[in-house]
Amino acid sequence: MNTEQSRSQRPRLRQAGVVIGSLPTGPQNAITDVTGVRVGHTTLIAGDGPLQPGIGPVRTGVTVILPHAGNLYSEKVRAAVHRINGFGKACGFEEVRELGVLESPIALTNTLNVWRVADALVDDALAQNPDIGIRTSTFNPVVGECNDGFLNDIQGRHVSAADVHAALAAARQSEVGAPVREGSVGAGTGTSCFGWKGGIGTASRVIPAQAGGWTLGALVQSNFGRADQLVVNGDAVGQRLRPDHLAAKEADAEKGSIMIVLATDAPLESRQLQRLCGRVAAGLARTGSTIGHGSGDFVIAFSTATRIPHEPTTLTHSEVVLVDEGRVLSFLFDAVVEAVEEAVLNSLYTATTVTGRDGNRRVKFGENE
Amino acid sequence: MNTEQSRSQRPRLRQAGVVIGSLPTGPQNAITDVTGVRVGHTTLIAGDGPLQPGIGPVRTGVTVILPHAGNLYSEKVRAAVHRINGFGKACGFEEVRELGVLESPIALTNTLNVWRVADALVDDALAQNPDIGIRTSTFNPVVGECNDGFLNDIQGRHVSAADVHAALAAARQSEVGAPVREGSVGAGTGTSCFGWKGGIGTASRVIPAQAGGWTLGALVQSNFGRADQLVVNGDAVGQRLRPDHLAAKEADAEKGSIMIVLATDAPLESRQLQRLCGRVAAGLARTGSTIGHGSGDFVIAFSTATRIPHEPTTLTHSEVVLVDEGRVLSFLFDAVVEAVEEAVLNSLYTATTVTGRDGNRRVKFGENE
Amino acid sequence: MNTEQSRSQRPRLRQAGVVIGSLPTGPQNAITDVTGVRVGHTTLIAGDGPLQPGIGPVRTGVTVILPHAGNLYSEKVRAAVHRINGFGKACGFEEVRELGVLESPIALTNTLNVWRVADALVDDALAQNPDIGIRTSTFNPVVGECNDGFLNDIQGRHVSAADVHAALAAARQSEVGAPVREGSVGAGTGTSCFGWKGGIGTASRVIPAQAGGWTLGALVQSNFGRADQLVVNGDAVGQRLRPDHLAAKEADAEKGSIMIVLATDAPLESRQLQRLCGRVAAGLARTGSTIGHGSGDFVIAFSTATRIPHEPTTLTHSEVVLVDEGRVLSFLFDAVVEAVEEAVLNSLYTATTVTGRDGNRRVKFGENE
Amino acid sequence: MNTEQSRSQRPRLRQAGVVIGSLPTGPQNAITDVTGVRVGHTTLIAGDGPLQPGIGPVRTGVTVILPHAGNLYSEKVRAAVHRINGFGKACGFEEVRELGVLESPIALTNTLNVWRVADALVDDALAQNPDIGIRTSTFNPVVGECNDGFLNDIQGRHVSAADVHAALAAARQSEVGAPVREGSVGAGTGTSCFGWKGGIGTASRVIPAQAGGWTLGALVQSNFGRADQLVVNGDAVGQRLRPDHLAAKEADAEKGSIMIVLATDAPLESRQLQRLCGRVAAGLARTGSTIGHGSGDFVIAFSTATRIPHEPTTLTHSEVVLVDEGRVLSFLFDAVVEAVEEAVLNSLYTATTVTGRDGNRRVKFGENE
Repeated sequence: MNTEQSRSQRPRLRQAGVVIGSLPTGPQNAITDVTGVRVGHTTLIAGDGPLQPGIGPVRTGVTVILPHAGNLYSEKVRAAVHRINGFGKACGFEEVRELGVLESPIALTNTLNVWRVADALVDDALAQNPDIGIRTSTFNPVVGECNDGFLNDIQGRHVSAADVHAALAAARQSEVGAPVREGSVGAGTGTSCFGWKGGIGTASRVIPAQAGGWTLGALVQSNFGRADQLVVNGDAVGQRLRPDHLAAKEADAEKGSIMIVLATDAPLESRQLQRLCGRVAAGLARTGSTIGHGSGDFVIAFSTATRIPHEPTTLTHSEVVLVDEGRVLSFLFDAVVEAVEEAVLNSLYTATTVTGRDGNRRVKFGENE
Repeated sequence: MNTEQSRSQRPRLRQAGVVIGSLPTGPQNAITDVTGVRVGHTTLIAGDGPLQPGIGPVRTGVTVILPHAGNLYSEKVRAAVHRINGFGKACGFEEVRELGVLESPIALTNTLNVWRVADALVDDALAQNPDIGIRTSTFNPVVGECNDGFLNDIQGRHVSAADVHAALAAARQSEVGAPVREGSVGAGTGTSCFGWKGGIGTASRVIPAQAGGWTLGALVQSNFGRADQLVVNGDAVGQRLRPDHLAAKEADAEKGSIMIVLATDAPLESRQLQRLCGRVAAGLARTGSTIGHGSGDFVIAFSTATRIPHEPTTLTHSEVVLVDEGRVLSFLFDAVVEAVEEAVLNSLYTATTVTGRDGNRRVKFGENE
Repeated sequence: MNTEQSRSQRPRLRQAGVVIGSLPTGPQNAITDVTGVRVGHTTLIAGDGPLQPGIGPVRTGVTVILPHAGNLYSEKVRAAVHRINGFGKACGFEEVRELGVLESPIALTNTLNVWRVADALVDDALAQNPDIGIRTSTFNPVVGECNDGFLNDIQGRHVSAADVHAALAAARQSEVGAPVREGSVGAGTGTSCFGWKGGIGTASRVIPAQAGGWTLGALVQSNFGRADQLVVNGDAVGQRLRPDHLAAKEADAEKGSIMIVLATDAPLESRQLQRLCGRVAAGLARTGSTIGHGSGDFVIAFSTATRIPHEPTTLTHSEVVLVDEGRVLSFLFDAVVEAVEEAVLNSLYTATTVTGRDGNRRVKFGENE
Repeated sequence: MNTEQSRSQRPRLRQAGVVIGSLPTGPQNAITDVTGVRVGHTTLIAGDGPLQPGIGPVRTGVTVILPHAGNLYSEKVRAAVHRINGFGKACGFEEVRELGVLESPIALTNTLNVWRVADALVDDALAQNPDIGIRTSTFNPVVGECNDGFLNDIQGRHVSAADVHAALAAARQSEVGAPVREGSVGAGTGTSCFGWKGGIGTASRVIPAQAGGWTLGALVQSNFGRADQLVVNGDAVGQRLRPDHLAAKEADAEKGSIMIVLATDAPLESRQLQRLCGRVAAGLARTGSTIGHGSGDFVIAFSTATRIPHEPTTLTHSEVVLVDEGRVLSFLFDAVVEAVEEAVLNSLYTATTVTGRDGNRRVKFGENE
């Protein structure tokens, strides 16, 4: 199977001259601007022609996001999860809600592949931590998904354990602060956005030094929206670019979803991370989303500021925590909204045309079919 | 105390030529387009000059929304509540969550007046239902609020039981489908929105006949946002209209809030009404909100389709319920987003300049101080 | 109105020879064993004979619990709230959920008096903090309730602001670690429990020194249960003590409720306090509760370990936090279950017979009518 | 691999002379008393001696519960899920929360096998519904788990897709109202309960005819509790039967969990099913549980009364719904508490001694090692 990733990338939103919001970006305008965060993709493209369920064509992949390159099970990070609309199969959320920590890489993939990918994360955790389930407690993999069945043989569940391990290896070997490939890659290989090709997008914001100077990054797997809904920085471009798509309203609306990952180095406890998650819907809305019935829209947020050992040796620990006060939080909330909006649009701007099963085709943004 | 309501009203958003979204409005473009829903205001304006805590000046009021003009305790309606951001004092939410019904008028007022207004709703329920707490169970008043302390002597808690009863009487005596007064009236008398005068706003949408033809109405008490954030139908007007206000960012951001009431005649169970609530944040975001830390942003939604008796005589009842399927729900979700966006802007467009305590002043939208 | 409190008290559960659980109690076996926590009651008993709604007879009161005797608005404590069953009117919960702090005394009273009591807490907060709503944000009073309408003229809402202020003054003037009056006092004056007289009850537990040695206290306002359900330390005494009451099953079941307050000096963040709340239902179940439909069963939990300033001067603070690990949490969870079970039974054992409106009578536990 | 199931079964609680509660049981005192509900197990026992991670010994399995024997994807049932304590990996919960329906068999297995089992449920759904992900939306498998790593090679994830399909086939081929095998079978093959061998247990209750005569069934996979905590019908037998186990308190407490499935033919909407879930903790508490930190305690509840088509042909449907009123709900709540308590004890009474990896041994209840 062909896992080659294309080396060229289309211009991102800012390269196209559109600036979202007022806060500055980090160096890469990517989730990896939060120091230590890594991203890795495996992209799966194979076969053409009529859908043969279980065989192909394959247009899918997996994207992993690591809060740090070390052993997440033994050094967990504070985290929160949030359901915007629950028509989705995200897994691992119950334990994050209860304990407020993330002990797994976050993996994104296609809807029907969630459990195979989760199982592959278990392999990885066992390899790093041979005591899991024997001497210590078990392990909670966190996986999100979008439905790429319009282009991909989704029933085939083609993302294998080896594909997950490859994405993890790529992430772990990447440099601190490396750029993130966007568009039709990894978990975004087969997804659609506002009727065009969607995929992976990312962005970041840095809040003012007097408010702490922390960085907030977002990464999305975009797969939602009807063409007529698209808004770019306040401009309802969707209404004039694709009038032909208005008729497709109902069909398009039903199969969407978006996964959003937020990372920050601000020292937030899980309750505060939950509050960040609550602002994601505002960022989505700015791109035109009305959060459709059939959409699985979930947020996973983490802070890299504190590491929580799996086996603490003391009863208490001393932790630096942000105060719940408007000055800093308002900047962080603005950062979430701006970064999510821009990450969605980056996924749209950078995605390349993909033709998949049954000749189904999603063209790149700006082109007609 | 002067409770006179001004008879003139400034042009609403559509009268100013701005059309939000694509769905048609109801006859009044108001929450009262949902048949049976009534609205009543009591507006309190008294005194001028320096703040004398507990005395005045008074710039506040109360707005009540009735799902029907009858006895809500004996004929309840299906309902849901939702917390977008919980820096607020809304009351009555726990029981609505558990039982999925509303048995009280919804009252909106200022933050510190919540409990006096709730107590006045108890008076009203006792007058209609003398058995409450004696033979039958008790009563759950539902009240929302915004902080109007920039203009109003909020410590004074000037909304009396008589003021609540007057608003209830006005609502009950109003005609079916009557227009709703907006702007600086009732609970909106002293509120601010994006740095200008805010207040009460409303709007409605009718979904296509082939999707059921149901009506969705929204009413808001707006009190949030910084001038630089304001977006009108995609146009970031706030950034050019009030550059002087950018400096006021922090102070303005801290005291905001918005209460949103949704009504529909679509036959929704409480879980489905909860899903409508989940789209309100998208409507707010389109006006520029990033849902600030200090904001109490709550939604209360109800359906008028089914009446639930307080003392049912059978073990089960047969109920018409909307199916959970994309065709209708997507239209209802779009209707929520459009109606909330327009209701907020209607509150802004119709509000008139108010000068309050200490000479504090909120000018009407479009004017500079 | 007679606010005298009886000086005698019936024997508590341990004095009757029943020991619940295995953990040791604090010095007073009371919520005040958590250093700094204070409790105050105002008990209202007036009139006899037929119910005259709005006039009497009066058998009610108010109980306040203070995390510390200082200014709670300017020095907040970490807190969580929890709904076990939401047929109740508790207020102030939304903001505690969002911000994870308590800035108000906790007041308990009768169901229809909640809002007058909340308003009186506002008076008190304004007296201590004249800037509320003027220069700073507003104030979030927290009030819980039970329905004492079987004995009390509940429609009369007889707990006045002065009664609340008296309870607050009593609490503030009490000694650190003072015993707590239980039974038919304060908010428990008119409540019922398992068909006998209920009321206020409290208990505490100290966890082992090697697990931190922290104290956990519970205080309840009991008003739930049918006679046949009562279990005392595993003995289903209700089934043999009151066979006459089995017939009353339905009527009794409908009006119950219980409010539970948990306090600890363990350094818990709000998420962890939430987890403590989740164990309260186990304590209630051990007394025989099946958590009835008509019950308003709510928990409010706080930790005295950290004080959160209303106006922090730094962006972050360093906080000692318990690690989320089994050794300590299991002891704290056991402490919650044991203390809640014992607090309920203390309320039952110490309550004295009360005859109220219409000659309605709840006899003390162990007696027949 | 040996999947033989032992044919003998130890006496259940009632056969041992212990009667829990006052409501009558259904014919089998099992979840299958709810008409149409089926249960199937695959039990995996292989190997002995030292743990060889990934190889064995194997002491595990899978248990499936079907609301009906038909196609659950095309005919869904109303459902709710609930987290008592979230230290667990249950999957499929987000979508049940959002949509209030179950479209999958419920499968129970060991902790690290969750995702392979979920993937096998996908196979099964695809076989029945070849359009999934191609023409229609995707599929939401629901899986719960307990950690059987004390006896089982949990890292091996030995429950294969074939094992899941075998359990599904067994369930589908079973008679309506068939008895359910309990104890050391299926997902309970390797679990522990209060320090003895635990496993699968079930029970049912029928509420009075005048309250509707509906049936409520519970099935549990028990894996929680310390020996000293065990209470049987109010008798703290754990404290006298196993004093040797008190020392093991900490170790035992850390790895527990319990999965609870509730079924009823009462016509409940998802909100009401959620309320049933809220009573499960009371049933657990009666057996001695304090809901430990390391426990994944989750409830899944469904009603068989209404079938929801995947592709409805009308906008609304007419549905018989239980009224939210005390008479019936109190009986159903009592039924939940009684059935859960008895199901846990049945799992304990019927489980047989199992010796597993490294010679680790859980003896049957009533025996010492």
